[in-house]
Amino acid sequence: MHLRFHTAGESHGRGLIAMIEGVPAGLDLDMDRDVNPELRRRQAGHGRGRRMDIETDCAELISGVRLGQTLGSPIAMIVWNRDWENWRTAMGQKPPVEEVSPKALRPVHLPRPGHADLVGVLKYDRQDARDALERASARETAARVACAAVAKRLLAELGIGIGSHVVALGSVEAKEPAQLPENLNEVSDRSPVRTLDAEAEARMIEEIDRAQEAGDTLGGIFEVVVTGLPVGLGSYVSWDRKLDARLAGALMSIQAIKGVEIGLGFHGARLPGSRVHDPILRDPAKPRTGGYGRATNHAGGLEGGVTTGEPLVLRCAMKPISTLMKGRLPSVHLLTGEAAEATAERSDVCSLPAAGVVGEAMAALVVADAVLEKFGGDSLGEVRRNFDSYLAHLASR
Amino acid sequence: MHLRFHTAGESHGRGLIAMIEGVPAGLDLDMDRDVNPELRRRQAGHGRGRRMDIETDCAELISGVRLGQTLGSPIAMIVWNRDWENWRTAMGQKPPVEEVSPKALRPVHLPRPGHADLVGVLKYDRQDARDALERASARETAARVACAAVAKRLLAELGIGIGSHVVALGSVEAKEPAQLPENLNEVSDRSPVRTLDAEAEARMIEEIDRAQEAGDTLGGIFEVVVTGLPVGLGSYVSWDRKLDARLAGALMSIQAIKGVEIGLGFHGARLPGSRVHDPILRDPAKPRTGGYGRATNHAGGLEGGVTTGEPLVLRCAMKPISTLMKGRLPSVHLLTGEAAEATAERSDVCSLPAAGVVGEAMAALVVADAVLEKFGGDSLGEVRRNFDSYLAHLASR
Amino acid sequence: MHLRFHTAGESHGRGLIAMIEGVPAGLDLDMDRDVNPELRRRQAGHGRGRRMDIETDCAELISGVRLGQTLGSPIAMIVWNRDWENWRTAMGQKPPVEEVSPKALRPVHLPRPGHADLVGVLKYDRQDARDALERASARETAARVACAAVAKRLLAELGIGIGSHVVALGSVEAKEPAQLPENLNEVSDRSPVRTLDAEAEARMIEEIDRAQEAGDTLGGIFEVVVTGLPVGLGSYVSWDRKLDARLAGALMSIQAIKGVEIGLGFHGARLPGSRVHDPILRDPAKPRTGGYGRATNHAGGLEGGVTTGEPLVLRCAMKPISTLMKGRLPSVHLLTGEAAEATAERSDVCSLPAAGVVGEAMAALVVADAVLEKFGGDSLGEVRRNFDSYLAHLASR
Amino acid sequence: MHLRFHTAGESHGRGLIAMIEGVPAGLDLDMDRDVNPELRRRQAGHGRGRRMDIETDCAELISGVRLGQTLGSPIAMIVWNRDWENWRTAMGQKPPVEEVSPKALRPVHLPRPGHADLVGVLKYDRQDARDALERASARETAARVACAAVAKRLLAELGIGIGSHVVALGSVEAKEPAQLPENLNEVSDRSPVRTLDAEAEARMIEEIDRAQEAGDTLGGIFEVVVTGLPVGLGSYVSWDRKLDARLAGALMSIQAIKGVEIGLGFHGARLPGSRVHDPILRDPAKPRTGGYGRATNHAGGLEGGVTTGEPLVLRCAMKPISTLMKGRLPSVHLLTGEAAEATAERSDVCSLPAAGVVGEAMAALVVADAVLEKFGGDSLGEVRRNFDSYLAHLASR
Repeated sequence: MHLRFHTAGESHGRGLIAMIEGVPAGLDLDMDRDVNPELRRRQAGHGRGRRMDIETDCAELISGVRLGQTLGSPIAMIVWNRDWENWRTAMGQKPPVEEVSPKALRPVHLPRPGHADLVGVLKYDRQDARDALERASARETAARVACAAVAKRLLAELGIGIGSHVVALGSVEAKEPAQLPENLNEVSDRSPVRTLDAEAEARMIEEIDRAQEAGDTLGGIFEVVVTGLPVGLGSYVSWDRKLDARLAGALMSIQAIKGVEIGLGFHGARLPGSRVHDPILRDPAKPRTGGYGRATNHAGGLEGGVTTGEPLVLRCAMKPISTLMKGRLPSVHLLTGEAAEATAERSDVCSLPAAGVVGEAMAALVVADAVLEKFGGDSLGEVRRNFDSYLAHLASR
Repeated sequence: MHLRFHTAGESHGRGLIAMIEGVPAGLDLDMDRDVNPELRRRQAGHGRGRRMDIETDCAELISGVRLGQTLGSPIAMIVWNRDWENWRTAMGQKPPVEEVSPKALRPVHLPRPGHADLVGVLKYDRQDARDALERASARETAARVACAAVAKRLLAELGIGIGSHVVALGSVEAKEPAQLPENLNEVSDRSPVRTLDAEAEARMIEEIDRAQEAGDTLGGIFEVVVTGLPVGLGSYVSWDRKLDARLAGALMSIQAIKGVEIGLGFHGARLPGSRVHDPILRDPAKPRTGGYGRATNHAGGLEGGVTTGEPLVLRCAMKPISTLMKGRLPSVHLLTGEAAEATAERSDVCSLPAAGVVGEAMAALVVADAVLEKFGGDSLGEVRRNFDSYLAHLASR
Repeated sequence: MHLRFHTAGESHGRGLIAMIEGVPAGLDLDMDRDVNPELRRRQAGHGRGRRMDIETDCAELISGVRLGQTLGSPIAMIVWNRDWENWRTAMGQKPPVEEVSPKALRPVHLPRPGHADLVGVLKYDRQDARDALERASARETAARVACAAVAKRLLAELGIGIGSHVVALGSVEAKEPAQLPENLNEVSDRSPVRTLDAEAEARMIEEIDRAQEAGDTLGGIFEVVVTGLPVGLGSYVSWDRKLDARLAGALMSIQAIKGVEIGLGFHGARLPGSRVHDPILRDPAKPRTGGYGRATNHAGGLEGGVTTGEPLVLRCAMKPISTLMKGRLPSVHLLTGEAAEATAERSDVCSLPAAGVVGEAMAALVVADAVLEKFGGDSLGEVRRNFDSYLAHLASR
Repeated sequence: MHLRFHTAGESHGRGLIAMIEGVPAGLDLDMDRDVNPELRRRQAGHGRGRRMDIETDCAELISGVRLGQTLGSPIAMIVWNRDWENWRTAMGQKPPVEEVSPKALRPVHLPRPGHADLVGVLKYDRQDARDALERASARETAARVACAAVAKRLLAELGIGIGSHVVALGSVEAKEPAQLPENLNEVSDRSPVRTLDAEAEARMIEEIDRAQEAGDTLGGIFEVVVTGLPVGLGSYVSWDRKLDARLAGALMSIQAIKGVEIGLGFHGARLPGSRVHDPILRDPAKPRTGGYGRATNHAGGLEGGVTTGEPLVLRCAMKPISTLMKGRLPSVHLLTGEAAEATAERSDVCSLPAAGVVGEAMAALVVADAVLEKFGGDSLGEVRRNFDSYLAHLASR
């Protein structure tokens, strides 16, 4: 019970609620500087549908901040759905007062493979898959990003930074850079597909455009990188304290993610130990690791579920978007039981670049939680005091 | 707060405690039939070191079962460490009463890359890496397997089965079988590397033997498969209820695991949507899915973090074991700060086959928790009544 | 992780957020019928200050309900603070853009004994006690009541009812009725002090009026009663599953509550066992207890932390309100360190009648959680099926 | 997820497991000095039955400590049941291999009012109430006390002390001392009924002896006091972070506790605010409160769910023991449904003095958790550094 966050809201409902609790007091927080730019980053990227134009998300602050500073109390925000007016009937809280055509309720009776349409209807015993898809939709991640913007602010105060970039989109692989740019997001955000490899970028855009024409969709792989970490976050003493476990759970919880790996990940499973483990060196220039360094970072910054102080390197595999606009997938009508093509709800072709931003969000929330677990602290000053005193102690060992 | 499990114990300490809580009453449980065979499975496999011969693990039941049946109360077991006599001094609870040579305490001052040796010493402010490695060791997984044996018994009562097999070991890939054998473990357990591909098996054994000669180590990839699941376990309504998230967290918490994927996983990220999503069909022969079937199972049995009723297919990447016996990795002496080769504590060459058993364990614990979440129930009879009534309702929709 | 609820919001901020998660799908929910009347009940009672007139609380639904039914997804509501316009500067999110008088920020530098003013300022390292009191205020309970209104709806569907009444107000004790009225709240809500004893009612009102004149405040004792419970909610198998523990924690968390007792409570501690324990009888008319009855209900419906099926009887001691309008208590100026009288922020004389409604709320949330823990269920139909099947099984034992 | 503890074990089973997890490394821990004396304190007191003589509890350490210091890993202990040999058949893990008389299984078919016998049998669907009572028994508290002994050691390192005394036993009330003795337990442990009032002590012993003769039982009220606390533990920001809520839940979870109050508690509900709230003063001699003091401590050390730095004063009402040896209570035979007297399992007349020790245990566990929540820290040195730095900051405000 350090940092907790909660979201609520349907994709075409009134709006999304983002609530984050356990944030220390005394943190400067400004929606326009800290939160809304993150929401915009989540909406960008080549391959997004029309909705991204309709709605520029903007979070309204409801609680937890006074006169520019956090109070220690829960921070709640609302991201209103700007399209709500068009959905008042279909997503109304009450049944329509007068008779409306069944179509006005926009029911979904042809569940889409890959979505939660069918499982949701069966689990929650509904007739209309809209009752499931509205919450299962990745629209919910806007609320996660809003919460994480607060966590990122806290981490930034401690010199911990988080960025991401796309390493593969559909069949196109980006070349791994010799070294990541220091301010990763400044570079990746400049690319419409958030990749660092300009040459691959062109082919990725092409692949998206081709998929769009074909009515098909794409996924890919993004990488989240966290820098400035001290050694010693997370723990091996119990399975649910391991930071690798907590990160993997958080990242896999993102809609459409089907794989998570850390450092060398799956590739490392194929190499012998002599080529995998990261030699330990003295490196007095690294106060955050107590003066130890590594010749490589194949472990992706985690040994035994604990940060080594090297950058966290996390990669996520995103499946292609489930809604196909042409060549739609076989489905079964929920009411009649007859075979038919799945519904096509307006959708993106590829939302991978945005998914990286959501990946950053989940990583930030987990890491901030681990920071508060190790350092405690009810005010930013107290967190910082305890953080600095740990680094000083590491230096003096 | 459905099923909870806890472990305690150091690798060379007195023993391991395994505690599982929240198990319904009225479940037949017999240590020799249900638990100890699982512990033995965890110890098998080509590539294991001498310890596996010294210690055939055996769990002693302490609580939670009376006259052959669970009581609903916490089930606690101890797996005594048979080697304890040799470690009484080094792992003693008290400082030695008389003077002993420093070596008798078996301190570890040359942290091994890949282990938690260095991070543990820095995080917990210790001088001797043994204080960290004893708990971080994968020996702890014996306690997980003991807990999971109980979960597996519960799942078996509901017709849910769990198995695993090795799909890649070091550089050797097993051929994917056209179809998995129905009783997966019966087949995979017959192989010394727990693979289904007899041809690959030979090469895997060879690769292990070569690594052993070279003083090197190996990892690989195993797959866990859960069958007999009803549609509707887990949920998309909140990030931490998603079954994919919970499974990924649990699997990544296993020592040496660096990657987790579900269904097509990373491979699916490279394909277009039209080739990934699993067409929905009517299939009246499937009561556990309400009479729906899928043409394929690329989703690995999970859509929106909810079971589809198709088999769960989970793959984990295990890094090679961190302790190299020859060509040891560069390290730094914890007390002198001087560069030196890392310690070599007695170790296996490859423990991948056993890791698959641990993977089954974590999957079983998560799935059993999700079953109790959906079906409630304080006795096996009540769980089963609610389970059956759900299936009957699905059939009647 | 069955039912979870979260609140956010400051007393004079933009509004309060109420979020409840884990509610089954398919529950009819109407704000005007189910939620808002509960909010009004929380605002009633003799002894309330002016604010209750200014603000008639009304919850706006944001998510979780479509076309009149719950979806299984988180239900979020906002209770806007109607007084917000007057607090825009003092409770602004940003520092004022132009210079304002320090008074416009309504700082509180004279912490009030009994409130969290001083502890909040020291813990969270603030200068202005408003940063603490705004969240610590009992205004937050409006959000709890909104969440609980949903839990009450669920419980009502299963025939479980919750009510409360005042048993002592200041020095005035109500006579215990021979038997509680069947619809407790219909009776108690008719009384301006929510008591069942008409004679005591008059004296309670008088005592409040006298306290008001004297600038003093009052507390008292209320009783929450839950009826229609099945035997077997909660558990003795682990300390944190005990329903008495969970209820006591939830009730003690209500602002100003300093004591909680169950059944005979403190009085029972003074009696011999022969006069305390409730004789067990056959009572075939009671299907919810498997046909067992009790000659008395001194245990207050809980044995070993498990419901007996007899009514839950919970009593809470509320301290008098901390803000005195006259004869204010000694305090110390936070900035100067000088002794002075504590601040008087507009306040009630006695809010005990309303506190009973909050007590009902917390009890409802805990009991609904225990119901879902035992019966599982993702839809109302499934919860009910499992509930009924348990009762049928009890009958057949 | 700071400090967690778990217990397992049946009253007449093999033994009890006590596991505490989240304890910082580097804490000196010695079973004979720190844990076993606490177990003996739990067994003392006038009014205990024969069992206390049979079994002098002694905890065997299994894990978490090496060479005299905690490692940060879970600390597990076993308290073996010394009477186990006599219960091998009745509490055997397996059904008896040869035929035994039904009596040898010591079934309980006449549930005792006040115990969990009946509710346990119905909830967990058992035939024999022994399946319930063995876990519901207060014997389990030995494991809590063992865990808490570790928490107490940690708190002692920070100057936080915990003690308890009996303030009423049956109908005998102890006089409240003008001031509590500084080392409370040294004084109260000297009394066979753990009271500070020598005159009441004699009458309490007499009342116990009379009850024993009558085959009756007694309860009473004990008070737990925690001293040396800093201001600022716990929080008002969310209901489940409030320290009063957490303490009340933990204390009410103790077997036979039916009421919990803090400070003036129920008495304070009857007084006007002007006589209840604790005036705030400057008191530079109190570094743990930032130099603030209180003229009184009616709040019992908690305002808004946060420690004020004044002593925590917690009182618990314990009902009389449920097993009556004579004049047994009416019950119903579980198999025949016929009315009969309840079973009498060997039992104490009054275990109130011991219950106070269990009360200390639960308070210690909650407070230690709150300490780690605020101060973080993986080693004792780190906890202390952060603790001291907070006190220094309070002094400098």
